[in-house]
Parts: sequence; structure tokens; C-alpha cells
Amino acid sequence: MKVAVVGASGYTGLELLRILLRHPDVELVAATSEQRAGTPVAESFPSLAGLTALVFEALDPAALEGRAELVFACLPHAASAPSVARLREAGIAVVDLSADFRLGDMAAYTAAYGAHGAAGWFGKAVYGLPELHRASLAGADFVAAPGCYPTSVLLPVAPFLRAGLVEPTLLVDAKSGVSGAGRNVDAAYLFAEVDENVKAYKVGGVHRHVPEMEEQAGRLAGSEVRITFVPHLLPTIRGIATSVFARPTGPLSPARAREVLAEAYADEPFVRVLPEGATPSLAAVRGSNFCDVQAVADERTGALVLLASLDNLVKGASGQAVQCMNLMRGLPETTGLLEAPLVP
Amino acid sequence: MKVAVVGASGYTGLELLRILLRHPDVELVAATSEQRAGTPVAESFPSLAGLTALVFEALDPAALEGRAELVFACLPHAASAPSVARLREAGIAVVDLSADFRLGDMAAYTAAYGAHGAAGWFGKAVYGLPELHRASLAGADFVAAPGCYPTSVLLPVAPFLRAGLVEPTLLVDAKSGVSGAGRNVDAAYLFAEVDENVKAYKVGGVHRHVPEMEEQAGRLAGSEVRITFVPHLLPTIRGIATSVFARPTGPLSPARAREVLAEAYADEPFVRVLPEGATPSLAAVRGSNFCDVQAVADERTGALVLLASLDNLVKGASGQAVQCMNLMRGLPETTGLLEAPLVP
Amino acid sequence: MKVAVVGASGYTGLELLRILLRHPDVELVAATSEQRAGTPVAESFPSLAGLTALVFEALDPAALEGRAELVFACLPHAASAPSVARLREAGIAVVDLSADFRLGDMAAYTAAYGAHGAAGWFGKAVYGLPELHRASLAGADFVAAPGCYPTSVLLPVAPFLRAGLVEPTLLVDAKSGVSGAGRNVDAAYLFAEVDENVKAYKVGGVHRHVPEMEEQAGRLAGSEVRITFVPHLLPTIRGIATSVFARPTGPLSPARAREVLAEAYADEPFVRVLPEGATPSLAAVRGSNFCDVQAVADERTGALVLLASLDNLVKGASGQAVQCMNLMRGLPETTGLLEAPLVP
Amino acid sequence: MKVAVVGASGYTGLELLRILLRHPDVELVAATSEQRAGTPVAESFPSLAGLTALVFEALDPAALEGRAELVFACLPHAASAPSVARLREAGIAVVDLSADFRLGDMAAYTAAYGAHGAAGWFGKAVYGLPELHRASLAGADFVAAPGCYPTSVLLPVAPFLRAGLVEPTLLVDAKSGVSGAGRNVDAAYLFAEVDENVKAYKVGGVHRHVPEMEEQAGRLAGSEVRITFVPHLLPTIRGIATSVFARPTGPLSPARAREVLAEAYADEPFVRVLPEGATPSLAAVRGSNFCDVQAVADERTGALVLLASLDNLVKGASGQAVQCMNLMRGLPETTGLLEAPLVP
Repeated sequence: MKVAVVGASGYTGLELLRILLRHPDVELVAATSEQRAGTPVAESFPSLAGLTALVFEALDPAALEGRAELVFACLPHAASAPSVARLREAGIAVVDLSADFRLGDMAAYTAAYGAHGAAGWFGKAVYGLPELHRASLAGADFVAAPGCYPTSVLLPVAPFLRAGLVEPTLLVDAKSGVSGAGRNVDAAYLFAEVDENVKAYKVGGVHRHVPEMEEQAGRLAGSEVRITFVPHLLPTIRGIATSVFARPTGPLSPARAREVLAEAYADEPFVRVLPEGATPSLAAVRGSNFCDVQAVADERTGALVLLASLDNLVKGASGQAVQCMNLMRGLPETTGLLEAPLVP
Repeated sequence: MKVAVVGASGYTGLELLRILLRHPDVELVAATSEQRAGTPVAESFPSLAGLTALVFEALDPAALEGRAELVFACLPHAASAPSVARLREAGIAVVDLSADFRLGDMAAYTAAYGAHGAAGWFGKAVYGLPELHRASLAGADFVAAPGCYPTSVLLPVAPFLRAGLVEPTLLVDAKSGVSGAGRNVDAAYLFAEVDENVKAYKVGGVHRHVPEMEEQAGRLAGSEVRITFVPHLLPTIRGIATSVFARPTGPLSPARAREVLAEAYADEPFVRVLPEGATPSLAAVRGSNFCDVQAVADERTGALVLLASLDNLVKGASGQAVQCMNLMRGLPETTGLLEAPLVP
Repeated sequence: MKVAVVGASGYTGLELLRILLRHPDVELVAATSEQRAGTPVAESFPSLAGLTALVFEALDPAALEGRAELVFACLPHAASAPSVARLREAGIAVVDLSADFRLGDMAAYTAAYGAHGAAGWFGKAVYGLPELHRASLAGADFVAAPGCYPTSVLLPVAPFLRAGLVEPTLLVDAKSGVSGAGRNVDAAYLFAEVDENVKAYKVGGVHRHVPEMEEQAGRLAGSEVRITFVPHLLPTIRGIATSVFARPTGPLSPARAREVLAEAYADEPFVRVLPEGATPSLAAVRGSNFCDVQAVADERTGALVLLASLDNLVKGASGQAVQCMNLMRGLPETTGLLEAPLVP
Repeated sequence: MKVAVVGASGYTGLELLRILLRHPDVELVAATSEQRAGTPVAESFPSLAGLTALVFEALDPAALEGRAELVFACLPHAASAPSVARLREAGIAVVDLSADFRLGDMAAYTAAYGAHGAAGWFGKAVYGLPELHRASLAGADFVAAPGCYPTSVLLPVAPFLRAGLVEPTLLVDAKSGVSGAGRNVDAAYLFAEVDENVKAYKVGGVHRHVPEMEEQAGRLAGSEVRITFVPHLLPTIRGIATSVFARPTGPLSPARAREVLAEAYADEPFVRVLPEGATPSLAAVRGSNFCDVQAVADERTGALVLLASLDNLVKGASGQAVQCMNLMRGLPETTGLLEAPLVP
């Protein structure tokens, strides 16, 4: 399968190259970057020296027609929409990693991101969380890969929302490694500012991922869900650790809480429900497409605590996008994605 | 004032030495360590070379009588109680940094730590959180310095509990640097295990700090408080970042929530209420006795989020212990403690 | 090919499992650990959950006979020799990752490690640095995988020593991530001691890797080579960055110095000679079997600086061991080893 | 003493504020920043909240006349010279932390930095390394604070060069924390690029600190000294670890090598010669004005290895600048500078 990555000079683009280079059914035919057009990929990314002879090119949807049958779009929010539209219009399948096609509610989109650049395609993409939308992904040509935070919230909470086991008011404390901000050259992401530091930001409902989480959670619950979201920046390159605090709608024993997760994910290759007493860690998923989850029902206080960890660049972005591609094209879902995490 | 530090070879002991060496009213007369007795302090701690000629000695409460008028006890939980009792019986004032004298409820103590080693002294210490118990600390001879997590929870939540502004059910997501575990030579604290990692542990009510938090919170609220506690280990040496999720008992605007904090701590030298929109960070308190706090009332979801950051070895342990000493001896409370944080 | 890993509960063992699980020609039949015998591997290493059903067993060379045709031995120095001997006597091919069979000079071995536990097998292993000893590795049944520091020194310096282009007196300043010390539960490797820190250790000739480097370097030069070695501990999990300072025996232009490297390694899949002006970094080789090298001839001062970076657990240990296995068994040398580095 | 810091919004400026706020003889009267003029210092640097009411102002040398008797200039190289000249012309004493007045050789300056912005003042400043130039600093009004790398090289090597004990050809392998690059918003200093990474840069003679080191070393030796310099970027916020490889001019025993250092620095408050077998670490000097040094004469290879560690923002910049100020004004040299390092 001939595949291209557009907007390939950021971290999700680099991660796609890393994964696709080992994917047995993929031929990487193009990687685009406006700033680096004409430069060998391996010059910009010395880690890839000896692994690829690709040269960055400028993005030209017409020129990709016929060369690539599927494109991963790693463009910034808002910039992505028009390019994706042109790729779709050229008949090329697209997995978009931006936020531009994740929502179904245009008002929520414009409130968070401003005017949409390809309104005709809005609402047309399948939301690419395979564990929740696998059937819709089979044979799809247009997929919006979920945000990293939403993936870490939705996977542990989905079985509880679907079964009506928790109230529709969730409190989420989430922590993300700095690559979640992309290759963003901003003082806030300098080593001397981030190392030995942890800091909450955009506390409350103001983070752009909240509408995405609430919309998907609402579909699972069958009614509106409200999420208080407290994200933090961590002194790690990769990884998201999420705590979801929920209130059970009825009695929920610790054993039953774990069973709910275990039953929901028994056959999922990438969601690992941890044994009793174990807690998710960033290390155990580093560099991999796994999402580790745990449920702790605290009968003393009546709270249900759901914990999840994933690698924001893999299961939170590029790995999940490849998982979607596998499903879109009828390949075994785990192809190219079952590498062991990099530990230590 | 002649002062000794017993159990001085761990991290809280070292931090006390660091602070006391610059304290203008303190003469350090002894530092004890069973394992390092006979060794110069500066040999064990090369950072102190050129700053102190002290030699570690074995702990002998009788030998400290007359030499030290106040002792900081940095012994492990359970080991501390009998030594502290002997020091008190020798008429020496004590600030104990262990958990042995923090609680008022013996059943809660024994459930968490086992049999108490000096039951006659149990319940006799003042709980050394100056912002809440300043009056009792003046002239006191026996103080139990609070735990680091409880300090980070109680300071932001106290004004709300006291005024009955929040329900007595709190959800706490806390993150601590690895020095919070002391100089504990355990595989879990190896660099290769901790770096690039974050991991929750002892989730629910099983952490030993929960009874301390609930007891103090209950006194503030005037009724029982239940806390769901989710601590995490961070890849930082120092620092605690705490999120407290509370439910207001009535309407609470964002502005009013901030005012509650601002009014409570207007005159406190070590509690900094951040301006609107700012969030606490570990960096801004690194190496200092400050605790930074913020309140965010999320009217959309009806949740109150309280955020706090402190340095677990300073405001969470040794700095707070010196703050207590200053109050016990009638010194200006900030003596030796107003150093600027080490940033970057 | 049926393969076992003995001493599999340390970091080089875990890294071998990580690599072998993706190796298309390997079936992992056993992993041994005395302390964890009876425990599922995935319980000790949560990162491997879902990837292997292996259960740690105690090491019994007799029981491996017939089950495994090749064993990777990851036992501690000195402990390795007798076990390796028994495996070899059982007719099993062995790649030993300890220091026990790397040297040819027994006096040097005993000076560094004490009495050898299987003197009859001493000197019988091929030194497993494929770029220097490829021919001897083809078909071999007994290989000693090189040390991580020696690999990082020998690869950049070999072409210069072989051609007599540098004096036989080398100055080496090397820096290693903490996993180079193995899963060693020692206060020196605690996060709070290592983070934000760098420290030289065993300066001069006292590091155990010096005899190995000097012996191999001497063979390349055809005469005795002396190495002043200054290793450092870095605040990273993985990676070795090495500077070798050499004195050219005659005029050596910057361009010629680079050419010497480029010619030597033009056809090597795992040694990447960087373009002019680029310098090796740990990031660019993280998690991979690459060794990146550069040569800078400083004509102003008359010094030749050789720089190398590698991942101590991959090219410095387990990856190189698998590279050796591929050669021993006639497989394509890169099988299972051409993954892109984990960047960022 | 009334003191101002110009260019106070970078890391050396912030570090000066941190130190001067605790200095008993200093009143901070102004902090300048073009970009932040009008903003409270504590708003830009939340760590200083509660410690200073200063508001950043734009730099106006005339306006400082009469208000400040001494100014620390933390402006970028080249930008510093004209401002410093105007301050000097206004009769204000200056400690300049830029490179603009460190050299005596204008050709070397222009080769490294381009045209000098105040040639009339070039060569007029005292080189502010107190351990080497204490007498000249007493009563001086114009001081150029040394670079961080040169300080770490010159202190260990000075006694050997002065006594003619080593050849005038030095090989230096140095490693610096990222704050050495200042608050430089560049992709190279992002957390995701620096963490878990180490990388050499500007290898050979091309680093701008080389002329400064060679000029000062040459004065000590009484003849030209050539330095091959290999700097590295470390994943730490602070700290420089330097190895100097020298060749003794005659027999030099390990004991004698240590004695040379010990004798040279016996009475120095900030240079700590480590005991035999100990090696400098970044941790032991973190946040302090100490420089720790060690000498290892390797008789087996004939090399002398000198090791040094210091905090680049303190002894490598702002602390040393304050040490100079103390000497310039006749204060005890250690005033405000004898804080214990922040360990752990």
C-alpha cells in the first residue's frame, strides 16, 4: 500500500515515519514539509539515517494523486481542513490527526478553533477510536484520529458510561509529557522550564479537548456528560497518565469495577486491564500502542477512580492512526504495532 | 540557640542541615546517624564540605541533655516514638518529623503503623502547620511536623472547610517527587525506573497520610471529612503538585473562590495565592518554604478545583519544621526561610 | 530457532526479550531468573503484558538441552563463567554478555575480576564485535559480547589504529546512562542522586573495561595501546557518548579524517558516519542498534577527536548480541535489528 | 549599596536577583528588561512573588546615574558593549557578564563576535576570576565576569600551568547544563530534544570560549597555550562538568598532583579540593558558588586528568559576579554566597 505523510516534520509525523518504516504492508512514497522541502528526511531527523532515502517535498494534493492511496495528515489544527478536503476530493483516503474533523458539532468547533476551513467535509469522518468504533472503520476512507487526552479518558470510562454505572459528571486530572504540545518552539517547553517541574494549565473547561471528550462521552452515555478537566505538563518526553474520578450510580464493589473493565477489553489487543493492585505507568507503555487501564472502587468514600496510561505519540496519535489504517484496509489490526515498549 | 538533628543522614535531615547552617539564631551542635557515626558530615554529604565541621554521632538522648535545647527528629516512623519520648523526658524541646505524633486517634495510628512506641506521649504534640495552628505553637515544646501531602491538601482547602463552603467529601490527585520517599534504597526509586515515568500508587484510602488529612480536615469542617486519595510518583527530585476536587455547598463564583483563598492567606508569608489565570508549578517553589495555591470554580460543571504546589523537603518537611521552631522560640517566623526559590 | 535467555530479569535480559519477541526467526523457549522463578515474565515486566506467556524458571543447563539451541547469558560477571561452561558442555551455542570470556589474557582477567570460574573455556569465545570480527562469527558457537564502553571506543578508533594513523596512547572521556550499571539497587543509582547530576567515577586505569579496550585496541594497532579512561554517570536511562582524543602520527586533514571513517564503514548497516559538521547524539540512536561516529581533526591544535554514540543496552549489549546470533546462524545480519530509534 | 541589574529577564539576571535579594549589604534599586518594561518582576518570575516589589524598566544609563552605584550587566554579547560604556561614562561601576570585555586581544574578539561596540573601553576591565586576580579586583570599578566554561577549565589547571608542570597543549572535554545557553527559545533547547540526550557541539577550536581560555591560560603559563575543546549539552538545568587532559612536563605522582591543587586552594572559600578517590559532581555544587576540583595523575599512561564541577549560573556567572562585587567594594568576599548547595 502506497502511503504518504503530510506535515511530516513534527513529532506525530516523525512517529508515523518510525512506525510505517517497519510496517510490512506499507510503502512510504512521500513525506511533506513546507519548511524543509528539498531536504532529505534523514538530514532533518538524524535518527532515520540509513533507514529512508525520502526527501521532504512541499504539499501538493494533486501531485499525490496516483502516487499515494492513503495519506496521514499531521498538519496543525485549522490548517489541516482545506488540505484534507483537497486530498479527499482527489480520491485519496485520509487519516487526519488534527482536531478539524473530530467533532460533530460545528458550534463547538468554531468556539474552540474559529471558522472551519472545509465545512463541507465537517462531520464526514469516522472518529478513529477502534475499540469504540471498529465497525465504522472497516472500509472507511476518511478518519479523524482522536486526541491523546480524549483517548486516555474514553477508554477507561466507556464501559461504565455505556452501562449507566456512573453519573454523567466526571472529574479528570491528566498529565502529559511535553511532546503532546508538538514540536512547538515556545519558552514554555524549554528544558530549563520543564525539567524538575510540573504545572497545571487551562484548568476547568477551557482546554480544547473538552468538547471532544464530552461529545464522545455523551454518545456512550446516551445523554449529556460534563467533564471538569485539569491537564498538567510533565517533565517527560512522552506519556499521558490520567485519573478519572466518577460517582457510581449504584453499589459498585472493587471486584465488579475491575470486571467491568476486564469484560469490555478481554479481546482487545491494545487495551491491557491490569491485575488487582497494579497501577498504570508511563514506562510500561513507552513507545508502544498499548493503553493500560485500572479501576479502583473506593467503597469507603463512594468514589470510582479510573486510571489510564498511554504513549501520547503512539496510542494517542500515530500508532492509533496506523491501527485505523489497518482496519480501513482490511489488514490485521495489529500489523506493525505489536512492538514491546522501550523499557527501561 | 543550640540545636541538634537526629537521624540526620536522610533527605529531611540533610535539608535541615542546609537550612539551619544559614539560620542566624541557630548553632548546630550535633547530627546523629547510627550507620555513619564517627564520619564527618561533609564526607557523607560532599555538598556541605567547607560549611560544617560536624561529625555524625550515634543517638544518645542523655548525651544531648545540656548540649541541645531543641532537637529535630528525622527518624523513621515507629522508630521515632521511643527516641522522641526520651528526649522529651530529658527536657529537650522536640520537633518530630515522623508520623508518630501527628494523629490524635490511636486506633488510626495503629491501623496504619502498628503498635506505638511511646503511647504516653501520643496526642501531646502540637500539629505543626503554622498557618492553622500558630497560636498553639507559640512557646510549645513538642511539635509534630505535618506530612508533605497533608500540608499540600490542607492549606488550599482549609478556608473552604472552615466556612462550610464545600461538601465534606474530597477527591485528591497528588503527585510527588521521589525525595518524598526519603533516601530509600529500593528498586522502585532507581533512576532507570523513575525517569520518563509517572505512576499512581496506593490508590484509594490506603495511603498512610489519609488518616492525618481526614483528621485535620474534620477539625476544620467540624464534622467528618472523607478523602479519596490518588498519589503519584513523579520524575522529579523535589516537589508536590496537588489537585483537590470539591463540591461547593452553594453557589460559588470563580471570583469568590479566589477571594476566599486571598482573604485567608493575605498576611501569610509562605502561602502565595496566585493571580487569576496563573497555576502553581513545582519550579516556582523549588528549594523554598512557599506553598503556592490557586482556586478555580468551574461554573459549567459545578466543581471547585484547588491547586497547590510546595517543595516536599521544605514546606513539606524541614522548612516547615524550622518555621515551627521559630514560633516555638519566639523568633520572627520567617527567620532563615525567605530564600528565593532555585529557578531555573 | 529455539532460543533461551538466562539471567533474564536484569536490564540486558529485558532488552533481549524486547528484541527477540519481534525477531522473525526466533522462538523464545525459556527465560531464567533465580529470584523470580515461577513468576510470569509479564508480571515482573508489565511492559511485556500481552506479548509473552513465558514464566521465569530457575537456570538448569541440563533442562535447556534439547529445548534451546542457543542461549544468551546475562548473568553477572564471575557467576556467568561456570553456567556458560555447562551450557557449552551440553552442546548449546552461547552468546555471553558478561565480561567472563571477553579477554585473552587470564592475568588481566583475574586482576580485574578475581579467579575465573571456568578456566578451560577461557579464551575460547569469539569477541563479538561484528564490524571487526565478522568472519570469525560466521558459524561460531561461542561468542563473548563486548562491553558497552569498549564498543563505543573501538568502533571510531579502529580504522585509525589499523592504518597506523594515530599514536598508541588514547585519552577517552566517556559518559553513560544509568542502565549501564544494570538493575543495581544501590544508593548511587537512585533518581534523587542521579537526576540533574553528572559525576566521573573510577578515573584513570581502574575501570574494568580498560583491559578489554586495550587488548582489542592493541590487536588492531599491532602493538600495545594505552588508554586513559574517564567514565561518567549521566542522568539518562540509556546511551553512551564517547570522546576519544588521539594524536595523529602524521599530517591528517579534517577531510581525510572523515574519509577514513567513511571508507571503513561504508557498507556497515549499523555504523553511521555522520556528515561534516554533525555530531553524534544519544537521541539519534535511542533504542536502536546504531553506533553514530564522527571524526574532527583539529589542525590548529594537532589533535584528532573521535566521537561516538550508541545505546548501551542495544549496540552496547543485547542488540549486538542478536547481531552476533544472526551471523553465527547465517541469518541476514540485520534481522530484527533495523527498527527506527525512538525519537523524540 | 545600591545596585541594579540590567538585562534582568534572562537566566543570569534571574540568578543575580536570587542572590542579591539575600545579600545583606545590597539594596536592589532597578532591574531592566526591554521586553518586559512595566511588568512587575514577580509576574515574570513567579518564584520571586512575595520577595520583591521591583518593576522591570527599560534600560536608560542616564536614569541609573545617582540611583545605582554598581550595575550588573547581563546583556547579550555585542549588545552589552555600548550600554556598558555609557554606564561607565556615567561613573557607575560595572560588572559585565557578557563576553565583550573579557579578552585583551581585539582581533580575537572580532573574529569571534564581530565589530566591538565600544572599542575605547576594550581591555579596560579586570578579568573577574577572584582566585587568580584578587588583587586587581580590590577597588576596581570595571570587571568582566569570566565565562562559565573558562572558569571550569582555568581553576583546576592554573596551578599546574603557573608552575610549568604541564605541557601547553590541553585537551578539554566539557559538559554543560542547558541554562548555559541562556533563556534561548530555540528548538535545540526544547525539553523533548534535550531530555535523555547528550550531544557534543562546536567541536575543536570553534567555540567562542576558546580564545578566552587560551588567553588566560597563556598568561598563567607565560607562553602560548593551545586548547582542543569539546563541549557537550547535558540533560540538566544547571552545572558544568569538565575534564582537562594534560601531559606533565616531568614525573608527577598522584599524591603530588593532588598536593599542587591543595596548596593552591587551601585558603580559598569557594574552591574545594576533593579528598583522594572522590570525584566532582554537579549535585554537590548545585545552586552554590563552589567549584569542586580533583587531580588524577595516571602513572600507567602518563596523563594528568583534572576534573572540575561548578554551577554555571553561580560560580560560572552570577555568583562569581557577586564575589567580584564584594571584592570591588571591600566587603568580605563570601558575603551572600555561602549558602549550602541544594541537595538532593
